[in-house]
Amino acid sequence: MSEQLPDLSILRRCWSGYDDPATTHTVQVNGVKIGGSKPVIIAGPCAVESYEQTLNIARAVKAAGAHLLRGGAYKPRTSPHSFQGLGREALEILVAVRAETGLGFVTEVMDPRLVDLVAEHADMLQIGSRSMQNYPLLREVGRTDKPILLKRGWSSTLEEWLCSAEYVAMEGNRNIVLCERGIRASCHWSYARNVLDLNVIQPVRQATPLPVMVDPSHATGQWSLVGAMSQAALAAGSHGLLIEALAPEVCREDLLCDAEQGIPQDVLQEITRAAEKMDVSLPSGLRAAAKC
Amino acid sequence: MSEQLPDLSILRRCWSGYDDPATTHTVQVNGVKIGGSKPVIIAGPCAVESYEQTLNIARAVKAAGAHLLRGGAYKPRTSPHSFQGLGREALEILVAVRAETGLGFVTEVMDPRLVDLVAEHADMLQIGSRSMQNYPLLREVGRTDKPILLKRGWSSTLEEWLCSAEYVAMEGNRNIVLCERGIRASCHWSYARNVLDLNVIQPVRQATPLPVMVDPSHATGQWSLVGAMSQAALAAGSHGLLIEALAPEVCREDLLCDAEQGIPQDVLQEITRAAEKMDVSLPSGLRAAAKC
Amino acid sequence: MSEQLPDLSILRRCWSGYDDPATTHTVQVNGVKIGGSKPVIIAGPCAVESYEQTLNIARAVKAAGAHLLRGGAYKPRTSPHSFQGLGREALEILVAVRAETGLGFVTEVMDPRLVDLVAEHADMLQIGSRSMQNYPLLREVGRTDKPILLKRGWSSTLEEWLCSAEYVAMEGNRNIVLCERGIRASCHWSYARNVLDLNVIQPVRQATPLPVMVDPSHATGQWSLVGAMSQAALAAGSHGLLIEALAPEVCREDLLCDAEQGIPQDVLQEITRAAEKMDVSLPSGLRAAAKC
Amino acid sequence: MSEQLPDLSILRRCWSGYDDPATTHTVQVNGVKIGGSKPVIIAGPCAVESYEQTLNIARAVKAAGAHLLRGGAYKPRTSPHSFQGLGREALEILVAVRAETGLGFVTEVMDPRLVDLVAEHADMLQIGSRSMQNYPLLREVGRTDKPILLKRGWSSTLEEWLCSAEYVAMEGNRNIVLCERGIRASCHWSYARNVLDLNVIQPVRQATPLPVMVDPSHATGQWSLVGAMSQAALAAGSHGLLIEALAPEVCREDLLCDAEQGIPQDVLQEITRAAEKMDVSLPSGLRAAAKC
Repeated sequence: MSEQLPDLSILRRCWSGYDDPATTHTVQVNGVKIGGSKPVIIAGPCAVESYEQTLNIARAVKAAGAHLLRGGAYKPRTSPHSFQGLGREALEILVAVRAETGLGFVTEVMDPRLVDLVAEHADMLQIGSRSMQNYPLLREVGRTDKPILLKRGWSSTLEEWLCSAEYVAMEGNRNIVLCERGIRASCHWSYARNVLDLNVIQPVRQATPLPVMVDPSHATGQWSLVGAMSQAALAAGSHGLLIEALAPEVCREDLLCDAEQGIPQDVLQEITRAAEKMDVSLPSGLRAAAKC
Repeated sequence: MSEQLPDLSILRRCWSGYDDPATTHTVQVNGVKIGGSKPVIIAGPCAVESYEQTLNIARAVKAAGAHLLRGGAYKPRTSPHSFQGLGREALEILVAVRAETGLGFVTEVMDPRLVDLVAEHADMLQIGSRSMQNYPLLREVGRTDKPILLKRGWSSTLEEWLCSAEYVAMEGNRNIVLCERGIRASCHWSYARNVLDLNVIQPVRQATPLPVMVDPSHATGQWSLVGAMSQAALAAGSHGLLIEALAPEVCREDLLCDAEQGIPQDVLQEITRAAEKMDVSLPSGLRAAAKC
Repeated sequence: MSEQLPDLSILRRCWSGYDDPATTHTVQVNGVKIGGSKPVIIAGPCAVESYEQTLNIARAVKAAGAHLLRGGAYKPRTSPHSFQGLGREALEILVAVRAETGLGFVTEVMDPRLVDLVAEHADMLQIGSRSMQNYPLLREVGRTDKPILLKRGWSSTLEEWLCSAEYVAMEGNRNIVLCERGIRASCHWSYARNVLDLNVIQPVRQATPLPVMVDPSHATGQWSLVGAMSQAALAAGSHGLLIEALAPEVCREDLLCDAEQGIPQDVLQEITRAAEKMDVSLPSGLRAAAKC
Repeated sequence: MSEQLPDLSILRRCWSGYDDPATTHTVQVNGVKIGGSKPVIIAGPCAVESYEQTLNIARAVKAAGAHLLRGGAYKPRTSPHSFQGLGREALEILVAVRAETGLGFVTEVMDPRLVDLVAEHADMLQIGSRSMQNYPLLREVGRTDKPILLKRGWSSTLEEWLCSAEYVAMEGNRNIVLCERGIRASCHWSYARNVLDLNVIQPVRQATPLPVMVDPSHATGQWSLVGAMSQAALAAGSHGLLIEALAPEVCREDLLCDAEQGIPQDVLQEITRAAEKMDVSLPSGLRAAAKC
């Protein structure tokens, strides 16, 4: 596979010290290490809607055993008439919630002009699927000292995804975590919004030492599938999960965004408990296979 | 989802006794129960090439802990100039190998005129992806008393797949095991031949009490991915695995068919050992979700 | 492209006398020549429902200037509970309508056991999309002396399609007309049932001297798009069109099958009139390009 | 279709004066009217590489009968190690070439921070496929007084595409031309880089009065298919074409970008001559169909 790629500084073959496919470049986010043998769980609301909602959910997420908080401040919405996120106010809410709970947070940035502002507040910057090939934005986040969560575009090849990571790395920032979030195909629309492509996890790990996570919430679009697909993702070798979770006692129908996706706290707890028992280092059998 | 479907006798809502999504209609194949809490592993060569090759691999498959043998007698090949299988001779080889090892076997049938012949020999009849909507064939296998392994077409919706199962059931045979084997999408060609769609497993289990398996060999097309994706499939709730395996000491390059797909015996052993520890009954959390 | 293909007897490079990409192997159907410079229009109902309906529509189709009749006797239906066609009775109706109108007809065969029966009645045998890789069926129709209309599967590559044609040709029958009928993709479902892939027409004509047609009815699934896409198909180099048409004064809602697809007679007339003015021989500019 | 869309100001049903599906909101670019009955041809190099190259090709394009020039100044390239365009220097070259030839030009902008600069120079701003859902960019170009050419993303639905146009319109700029450029599917890779989705043209015209064009160069990725697909696009109702063309006497292999796509001058001439004879107003038959 990687033969077809140009020489990229993020490939194993160009990054010294990572010849062994079992080694991973770990990325630190507010004291949490992504890329080690223990899966990292990032959970939180689709969008930050208020301080109370965010604090409630952060406490629930922490109690369930998750390691980092996710929450949208600037939301990429298909229609300009949909709720677009609280913006700067949401960033301040997330900072206050971090102070209260100790949970570091990841949030999306879409506009290169807002990268500095978001980087001042957040612990990790998310590049969403729609922005995977937004090259001015990739360059801009590459100039910050914050770790980057780079989602795969929903019809992007592995080569395109890795080249997008290279835009970030070229500016000096190799603290990149890749995130598979489902692709579009022709035959899944009645039961899932996307197809979670777990086949890609091992080839990513073979090609690059960067860690790779999975977002089962967007990959399914249905909260009732998130539990099973979280387990499947870790079994396939994902270094962690990015999950949308509901606040306790929230009414699903009142949410401003993606109400079908958030899981209740007990499902999150089930996922984190199963994850704690797993080791996502490359097992010896797979290491042998990966060398072939 | 199932609202869009017509009333089919294989749906939970039309099949009395299966209201609880945790219940499965188990299918017996040569004494092996598919659809219980323990995953069933079916392994074997792509094509039956000789008695010695088949016996060797059957012994290896059994020693590795697999429960049933697979092996192609009539091979659907894209080109008419490719090896098409040994046909009747292969059926006789498989019967002889069953006598020797005790392993029941599943083999594909493509031609309605050969259904009786294949059903006389085999323990389970496979309908391949290309034949999922071959309705005369589906009706014909529905008239036998053998269990049917019905693969999903590579661009087929869940509704189409279930309707194809209904063609079999309508003739009186509800001993059907569904098998996901990867779908075609637009962005996976450099690292995998198909996209393994694990999102579909839970919706299948919610819609019908029929058991569902996964074929990670065709779903990836790369033997080095089969180990990881086997684990992922079981974690996603698959009742079992259909895997292509190499004979011990065989040279991959000498195979007549799909040489890239077969796994060596040690990887098969790793898979069966992990499978033995798993329980694929629907866990309580998912059962709750499935009821929503 | 054709470099990747094995040597097939239907490829230009293996079929002597067809080196010039402007030459086509013409196929005769009841005196109508498919593959010449004039587009051939085949039109008729989705399914034969009665003698009166079929005769009415055949007369309308003839009056509108179409050259051959289409009509389903054996219908491949996703659900076994849908109308499956009148079978043998429909064949007899089509024969009687041919006697009355002089229009030759094409009809689908799905079951290898019915090939002889259908071939005794029909002027051309259609292999539907779902059957494109039904190899026993392809071999069986290859043994008849009737021309074959081979539809492309809805996710089939050009290589797979040509290999399927080769299954027919290998049995001695090279009177094959290829037919593009739309493929499945991920982003067209709200406005069309498939994506009409006109990009494939010129590569087909470069690879093989067999003629190629387009079915704009299944390719769109919406009768209001059939007029525009018929014109586009001929402009792209299709040798003809296969169109579903309504009987005059029929009520769309009363149809047993694909009610959304049939075009009214005035639209069919508009299409045939435009087609009569077109020349689908390869123009000199494209011939030059095709040689590159 | 449009029932599923929220109320958007660019939809016929929300934009007064455009109830008749035969009416189009025409967009003026340097005196050229897009959206009338005559197709508009925009042609030029993939990337501006020098003044001489651009002037040569502009003269050839004008001589061939095209109406506007296209040429990349800022190129979105999958890999950061590929040629990225000459940037500001290219804009100045395009302005000089316009002064020399009189041809207005369209060029892509990817970075919201460069919108003012590009708008000062160009006659029309192109939003590329990768940027179709770059909402900060869409808002920024919506604030200029320049017409916008909005390409469809390669897996974007019609609803997503129209919503992206609405981001532009919401800022006060409804001079938008939509451009179909091919989508990704699973079965076309051996003969074309994308699938040109001509099915979408009529539904676009039914949903919105904005004009719609087709880019056959990116939609095929093969210059030898561009002639046929240009004809097909106009037959399907496209208001014009956006084509990559080679400079006379250029050697295809020396190009820095997309060398396979550019057509030679004689093919461009063939396309423009055919286009001159066409009327892309909605014909009466289709108008009737569109009203249904």
